[in-house]
Amino acid sequence: MKVLFLNGPNLNLLGTRQPEIYGKTTLLDIERMVRQRAVDLKVEIDFRQTNDEGELVDWIQGSKGTVNAIVLNAAAYTHTSVALRDAITAVELPVIEIHLSNIHAREPFRHRSLISGVCRGQIAGFGAQSYLLGLLAAVNLTTSS
Amino acid sequence: MKVLFLNGPNLNLLGTRQPEIYGKTTLLDIERMVRQRAVDLKVEIDFRQTNDEGELVDWIQGSKGTVNAIVLNAAAYTHTSVALRDAITAVELPVIEIHLSNIHAREPFRHRSLISGVCRGQIAGFGAQSYLLGLLAAVNLTTSS
Amino acid sequence: MKVLFLNGPNLNLLGTRQPEIYGKTTLLDIERMVRQRAVDLKVEIDFRQTNDEGELVDWIQGSKGTVNAIVLNAAAYTHTSVALRDAITAVELPVIEIHLSNIHAREPFRHRSLISGVCRGQIAGFGAQSYLLGLLAAVNLTTSS
Amino acid sequence: MKVLFLNGPNLNLLGTRQPEIYGKTTLLDIERMVRQRAVDLKVEIDFRQTNDEGELVDWIQGSKGTVNAIVLNAAAYTHTSVALRDAITAVELPVIEIHLSNIHAREPFRHRSLISGVCRGQIAGFGAQSYLLGLLAAVNLTTSS
Amino acid sequence: MKVLFLNGPNLNLLGTRQPEIYGKTTLLDIERMVRQRAVDLKVEIDFRQTNDEGELVDWIQGSKGTVNAIVLNAAAYTHTSVALRDAITAVELPVIEIHLSNIHAREPFRHRSLISGVCRGQIAGFGAQSYLLGLLAAVNLTTSS
Amino acid sequence: MKVLFLNGPNLNLLGTRQPEIYGKTTLLDIERMVRQRAVDLKVEIDFRQTNDEGELVDWIQGSKGTVNAIVLNAAAYTHTSVALRDAITAVELPVIEIHLSNIHAREPFRHRSLISGVCRGQIAGFGAQSYLLGLLAAVNLTTSS
Amino acid sequence: MKVLFLNGPNLNLLGTRQPEIYGKTTLLDIERMVRQRAVDLKVEIDFRQTNDEGELVDWIQGSKGTVNAIVLNAAAYTHTSVALRDAITAVELPVIEIHLSNIHAREPFRHRSLISGVCRGQIAGFGAQSYLLGLLAAVNLTTSS
Amino acid sequence: MKVLFLNGPNLNLLGTRQPEIYGKTTLLDIERMVRQRAVDLKVEIDFRQTNDEGELVDWIQGSKGTVNAIVLNAAAYTHTSVALRDAITAVELPVIEIHLSNIHAREPFRHRSLISGVCRGQIAGFGAQSYLLGLLAAVNLTTSS
Amino acid sequence: MKVLFLNGPNLNLLGTRQPEIYGKTTLLDIERMVRQRAVDLKVEIDFRQTNDEGELVDWIQGSKGTVNAIVLNAAAYTHTSVALRDAITAVELPVIEIHLSNIHAREPFRHRSLISGVCRGQIAGFGAQSYLLGLLAAVNLTTSS
Amino acid sequence: MKVLFLNGPNLNLLGTRQPEIYGKTTLLDIERMVRQRAVDLKVEIDFRQTNDEGELVDWIQGSKGTVNAIVLNAAAYTHTSVALRDAITAVELPVIEIHLSNIHAREPFRHRSLISGVCRGQIAGFGAQSYLLGLLAAVNLTTSS
Amino acid sequence: MKVLFLNGPNLNLLGTRQPEIYGKTTLLDIERMVRQRAVDLKVEIDFRQTNDEGELVDWIQGSKGTVNAIVLNAAAYTHTSVALRDAITAVELPVIEIHLSNIHAREPFRHRSLISGVCRGQIAGFGAQSYLLGLLAAVNLTTSS
Amino acid sequence: MKVLFLNGPNLNLLGTRQPEIYGKTTLLDIERMVRQRAVDLKVEIDFRQTNDEGELVDWIQGSKGTVNAIVLNAAAYTHTSVALRDAITAVELPVIEIHLSNIHAREPFRHRSLISGVCRGQIAGFGAQSYLLGLLAAVNLTTSS
Repeated sequence: MKVLFLNGPNLNLLGTRQPEIYGKTTLLDIERMVRQRAVDLKVEIDFRQTNDEGELVDWIQGSKGTVNAIVLNAAAYTHTSVALRDAITAVELPVIEIHLSNIHAREPFRHRSLISGVCRGQIAGFGAQSYLLGLLAAVNLTTSS
Repeated sequence: MKVLFLNGPNLNLLGTRQPEIYGKTTLLDIERMVRQRAVDLKVEIDFRQTNDEGELVDWIQGSKGTVNAIVLNAAAYTHTSVALRDAITAVELPVIEIHLSNIHAREPFRHRSLISGVCRGQIAGFGAQSYLLGLLAAVNLTTSS
Repeated sequence: MKVLFLNGPNLNLLGTRQPEIYGKTTLLDIERMVRQRAVDLKVEIDFRQTNDEGELVDWIQGSKGTVNAIVLNAAAYTHTSVALRDAITAVELPVIEIHLSNIHAREPFRHRSLISGVCRGQIAGFGAQSYLLGLLAAVNLTTSS
Repeated sequence: MKVLFLNGPNLNLLGTRQPEIYGKTTLLDIERMVRQRAVDLKVEIDFRQTNDEGELVDWIQGSKGTVNAIVLNAAAYTHTSVALRDAITAVELPVIEIHLSNIHAREPFRHRSLISGVCRGQIAGFGAQSYLLGLLAAVNLTTSS
Repeated sequence: MKVLFLNGPNLNLLGTRQPEIYGKTTLLDIERMVRQRAVDLKVEIDFRQTNDEGELVDWIQGSKGTVNAIVLNAAAYTHTSVALRDAITAVELPVIEIHLSNIHAREPFRHRSLISGVCRGQIAGFGAQSYLLGLLAAVNLTTSS
Repeated sequence: MKVLFLNGPNLNLLGTRQPEIYGKTTLLDIERMVRQRAVDLKVEIDFRQTNDEGELVDWIQGSKGTVNAIVLNAAAYTHTSVALRDAITAVELPVIEIHLSNIHAREPFRHRSLISGVCRGQIAGFGAQSYLLGLLAAVNLTTSS
Repeated sequence: MKVLFLNGPNLNLLGTRQPEIYGKTTLLDIERMVRQRAVDLKVEIDFRQTNDEGELVDWIQGSKGTVNAIVLNAAAYTHTSVALRDAITAVELPVIEIHLSNIHAREPFRHRSLISGVCRGQIAGFGAQSYLLGLLAAVNLTTSS
Repeated sequence: MKVLFLNGPNLNLLGTRQPEIYGKTTLLDIERMVRQRAVDLKVEIDFRQTNDEGELVDWIQGSKGTVNAIVLNAAAYTHTSVALRDAITAVELPVIEIHLSNIHAREPFRHRSLISGVCRGQIAGFGAQSYLLGLLAAVNLTTSS
Repeated sequence: MKVLFLNGPNLNLLGTRQPEIYGKTTLLDIERMVRQRAVDLKVEIDFRQTNDEGELVDWIQGSKGTVNAIVLNAAAYTHTSVALRDAITAVELPVIEIHLSNIHAREPFRHRSLISGVCRGQIAGFGAQSYLLGLLAAVNLTTSS
Repeated sequence: MKVLFLNGPNLNLLGTRQPEIYGKTTLLDIERMVRQRAVDLKVEIDFRQTNDEGELVDWIQGSKGTVNAIVLNAAAYTHTSVALRDAITAVELPVIEIHLSNIHAREPFRHRSLISGVCRGQIAGFGAQSYLLGLLAAVNLTTSS
Repeated sequence: MKVLFLNGPNLNLLGTRQPEIYGKTTLLDIERMVRQRAVDLKVEIDFRQTNDEGELVDWIQGSKGTVNAIVLNAAAYTHTSVALRDAITAVELPVIEIHLSNIHAREPFRHRSLISGVCRGQIAGFGAQSYLLGLLAAVNLTTSS
Repeated sequence: MKVLFLNGPNLNLLGTRQPEIYGKTTLLDIERMVRQRAVDLKVEIDFRQTNDEGELVDWIQGSKGTVNAIVLNAAAYTHTSVALRDAITAVELPVIEIHLSNIHAREPFRHRSLISGVCRGQIAGFGAQSYLLGLLAAVNLTTSS
């Protein structure tokens, strides 16, 4: 079993950006936590980040037939990208939407997600833990279906 | 450690209501799954359901000082109850909002959650699995804080 | 054949509340009219009122397998209760929405009905007569299906 | 006593249009059902259909002093015609708004009725039965006032 | 000089409809007042009424080259007819929008006029006097341009 | 009989402001036209202009018992002043709202008039002629009531 | 003279909830302040709290004929309950809406009050003092009417 | 094969209305172009225009079983007629919505089409060419299905 | 202790304006009531009225360091003046918003208050009594802080 | 003559994505159809696809002076890209907006096109045929201007 | 060359109002900075402040023919005054809108500017520096045009 | 000191695009003007343009620790990019938003800026001069903080 973790814009700054607020955990730290847990679950992990909407679309398209599920933190593109939505629909894989923060408790424009209508489910607000819960959900969806 | 699971209106019908659609898992089955996993995690569980908004408010208020976290499936009251929101704010405990279905992919009036602004995070769309992910998140929030 | 009549908040005040406007017909008078007509139609009647949203949900849930149809005057909860809507969906019985007044000719917030989307039909504006028309509709729906 | 039944655009296609969905009952069948019941109630019936907004306005105007009540299925004009609304106000007769389908459970633009604010009441969602309930309501309104 | 007065739906009922409210002046009375004043102004008058949107469009189209101005009381079609708007644009004549009542002080749906954006001006709220003011405005626009 | 003409902000610039567009008629020219016609009608005229919202309110208040009607071109305050609206209501005189341009054909924020709901009627779009029509309407309202 | 004080959801937590923010005054303290002042004013006090919407409706209904006025802090139900609104209308007593905080300075969903349209007046933002001002207003309304 | 071309209000003025803007091509010219091309495609053409909403509905209804497709330029009724929408749904023929101008680049009220939701497709903005493209689309839809 | 009472536009007409509706109490009567009560409370009163938005801003600014609190009935400017809001913020004094009528039960545009977000609290709907309650609230706020 | 066909995100998946719904026609098949027809019309074709918004902007910019027209299926970027709109405006070439599906009959967020306001026209809903109609429209626009 | 600096309501309090937040720079300090820089640029300065909307309108009107440009900090009237907008349009001078704070990052009602549509440009968010940038922009606009 | 100038989509076309409207100043000309002025101010300049949203995000991220301020003309992405907003927040540098045109005087969708809420200030409407004012503002912000 293989799970693809995709990270959208500005997530590469995690840990170095306002560490007094967001903590010192970097995206690399999160990737390590995910990979460690994945070993226990016997799951292969592909973990990527990009600031480019088109590249995210490319990666989702390319995942077809090569992974069992996608865990997607689309960050800012969550709220503005119909292209991501269409790619998710097209790829016919279970996609799990995750967010570090509770987007429903932030600015109004972050309450609207253009992609949640075509994802299996959403996990938001648990920081790095959102990634581990996303991994578990992905494994569960794949093995139970 | 003790976690309170609260279930809102109509969740008592789970499993017997349109089983060809929602499956045959009852709320009792979910409670058993939660309790089983809780044993492994050495967590005590309190698991309740009510159709009454006022009773949900009472239960949240009563949880103060007696549990470490609340996993809340407020069902229909998610979208209409300011009273629940105020109770969550008042109780000063981590509250995790869960939903069986992906509410963001359903009717527009289900996209608005009056309580998510004061919950720690949201897990939606994974069926019974949402409860187990909620339990893990609750344990993690409590032990890491 | 058995039909359940459910009455929501403040309908117990009918006849004593502003009688110069609403007339002197009480809810008991209406119940008698309904029962009288029911005798002719050989239909058994269960007729209840409550001010409590949760109790209305309980009653709708409890009607499954015990009645053939529900005639529901949800009064104020018509406009605010998603819980009622979900209970109606779950109970899998024909539910007929009735109103004494023509809600479409009153304040704008009464134009929105959260439950009409899951009821079979709506009868509004005929005073006590709305109950008798609701009874006829219920009998017809049940016998013709 | 005389009741005027007015039918708006496209209702003439009833029964031949998508019969697998709407059934095979034609508008003529409905007219016969109405006339049959009217005989029992000793009510004279005038039953008409037109696709023309202006003609509906003419007919409502012409009914003054010649009928006791109007049962109006304005179909599509329900949602777009202020002219019908003004005609109903002007004619000073009880007008009962009926619909075959439950308009509140259909597309959003069908939720807005421009005429319900000036009709006595609304009956919607009972198919051909809506006409019979409308007849009863008309008779009752006329005899009790 | 010739001025065309066009009257929309339900204006034919003027004087006989709720005379205790609207007074006993009929549309014929208004026509007579307009014709009388027109004699003084040496203006020829064409005065018509219809309940039909299409006929109003026909009349506006037909006025091209035969009259100098149009005084239009479109009544209910003021608020719903794009067809009238397009006809007014096409006919390239000065059109003066008039209303018996002050539409801005009535129901919100009467505040929106689809035709005022393409009329020269609007006169509303002066009862039968609105017609005489409209005639004066028409004469003035035609003679001064 | 005495009629008060009130002019709001920037109307003092008429004639000198963009004369190639608005023409060379000044507010003084309009005043003269109004006074000339008033002589024929045996009406006394008071004609004023101010850029100050509070002064307009003062003038409306002060007119009580001293004039028979007000012709009001509130200009920009038409769209923003609740104070004017309340003054008009308080003064219990017929107030006629006039505008040089057809405000309904201009920017959307000019479509909303805060005062038209409490004025007798509105005349808009006839340039200086709007003042003469306003005078006639004022005389007619006063003599016929 | 007797005044009924009704308190809605979560007000029972006052004083123990976030005392560093809301202070240490409990609902019992407020009740004592109210009773003390009532003695001076020779007014009998009934003072209650519930988290249940239906119970609030019951209490309002039951007050008819037994008290002279109601001082109502509906808390969260202020913003969501049409049932309370209808009960207030039905009971035909002066009802004074009070709030501890200035609801107009809080989240947008607290700016909408479903009940203020049928209450005599509103007092908001003075903390425990809101109750004493409400008492004075109630006494004044009752004695002056 | 037979294709019905229907033209809505004011299209009869084409070519004579503001020719410096819209050009001198009349509706008759367009009809000739369509008929010429139809000869090449061995398609029979029926080409009509009306200003009347009801007549358009009649023609759509009457086309059932007599033509293979409809090319519809509903003009102003595009934006206001639910009756047309219902007729299109009822007739069960492929209907192609065309417009001379690009309605999406004009006034906001022209951006909303009430009929496009039930048409096969839309062609807008190509002037007379829109008719020829509509004919090709109609032929293609009919021969390929 | 000194309290400044500021009154906005049209309040000078109180008592003489529609006395059959608003009663015969003038603003001077209210001022006397306030002064009388102030003597008991040993509070100095400054009581003013203006129709001018700018003068209200001047007065609020000028109150800094000279009074202990402001009781403000901004009347119409409540709904339209951001300048008042900014002045209240700048003056750093407790400001109490009062209204004679219950603004929440009037026209929708009166439901929005631009100033309540920066006032301490609001008292609305108690007629002249609103001023006395405002005085008490002001004294209480000043002495308890 | 040369026409540029630009295809936006996810169109590269055509034919392999949900073939039971969208059919088995690939984008390459469509390109072949277009090239075949172009040979007949003696038009040179450039046909490209990208998932990247910036690349679409680059291509539109680069087309200036090298092609006669653009046929643009912007897919998801139709609804979210102001950058495309500005590029179309800047390039000063006729741009024809096409869509495979009837976007007006899909989700509400697809009804808004940010680019149609600056395109010559729109063709939507005819599947692969939309491309051929777009080609014809492009040729016609270019040769007739 | 002469530039008029106009300052709206509450700007006279600058420096004394919440100095811990807004700093101690007064409007007089800003005027001095502006005059100093103006000497270098050989520009004459007129610098005024008022709390009165009408006076701002007067000043803008009076500037015609006497200054080369206006730098306008309309403060609160930015968001509520159509009268200012009309005065700016009428005066036919370049007007530069400035703000001390970044109004786009503040409350939503400050995001709407009624005057920016008729100003040459906007400079916001640079504190006292906004005035100097405004001066430079004014000089540049005047010398380059 | 070093300032980064970033230019978004389509700005590379400046000068060659509709020169009769936008003038012949190219982006290179603007860069030269900026560099010339920067020499006087002893500021180092980095000046870039891209059509790609992701590249803009990369550049903003990369500027951390290498420049003192950013002057950002995000062009079309101003209105659609949450990713830019998040990058600006993350980079913790003063960012100054500039625009050639006055975006507040253009189409409504250009009035909304997604980035201004996190920028220090905005300069819009002064053409190439906006860049020089932006440079001055950047230098001032950096040296005064």
